[in-house]
Amino acid sequence: MSGAKDRLRLWLRLLKITRAVEGDLRNRFRLEHDTTLPRFDVLAALSRHPEGLKMSRLSSLLRVSNGNVTGIADRLADEGLVERVPVPDDRRAMLLRLTAAGAAEFARQAAAHEAWINELLAGFSPQDARALAQTLNRFADTRDEKEFSHAQ
Amino acid sequence: MSGAKDRLRLWLRLLKITRAVEGDLRNRFRLEHDTTLPRFDVLAALSRHPEGLKMSRLSSLLRVSNGNVTGIADRLADEGLVERVPVPDDRRAMLLRLTAAGAAEFARQAAAHEAWINELLAGFSPQDARALAQTLNRFADTRDEKEFSHAQ
Repeated sequence: MSGAKDRLRLWLRLLKITRAVEGDLRNRFRLEHDTTLPRFDVLAALSRHPEGLKMSRLSSLLRVSNGNVTGIADRLADEGLVERVPVPDDRRAMLLRLTAAGAAEFARQAAAHEAWINELLAGFSPQDARALAQTLNRFADTRDEKEFSHAQ
Repeated sequence: MSGAKDRLRLWLRLLKITRAVEGDLRNRFRLEHDTTLPRFDVLAALSRHPEGLKMSRLSSLLRVSNGNVTGIADRLADEGLVERVPVPDDRRAMLLRLTAAGAAEFARQAAAHEAWINELLAGFSPQDARALAQTLNRFADTRDEKEFSHAQ
């Protein structure tokens, strides 16, 4: 079963890189944008869904509990970055969506995020990065409809 | 700056795989071993340090807050899996270490963990896995003394 050891080693390395990059992102978001990874994830998800998302859907996309997403949404709303709008054909449901200020703030954070990733993963040439991403596609994810999230 | 986009795509893929595998591990540990990833991480760190670890060191290795590690250690101690022993030359410090029961339980969990990883990453041949792990070494981790941890 040497394959098992190779895969375990690969897994530990994937975990180590992910942890290291996330740790750096967390610090940079805090220091330079006074925000957190889960807040960034919420803005990112809403920017991919300009029509708005129900809280339950947002919570499921980000794999974060409803309570956590509600707390984050409340604070983002207080800051004017998101707003709650009624759903036309469902009186009880509300959609969360970005305000114009939220879209602008997300664009700023996303540009910083991309620059940081470019710096943190500078050890991989663009060719390396493309080849790696390609190989990683062999991982059969059965939960493709999920979006990425830093929060758990 | 096409390199930046390639690296960002690589990062999102790394994050997606790590999240998916961690999610599965979390469920399996809960269902089959009635335990959690942070508990497994604590046992794993202690098994790599049979001489025992101070709580502060364990907390730093796992990048988890002191309070969280203390709570986990308390419960593991209640279950007889770890014990606190005095440090010979420091009256106020205690070392946390595995008991024999803890070592046996960790061996059981580690075998299951390895088998799950082997299954979850079955899309990668042993050759793929070795080549990938090798390429991932190009990530320059400046925090090499840190050990891996699922918890944040």
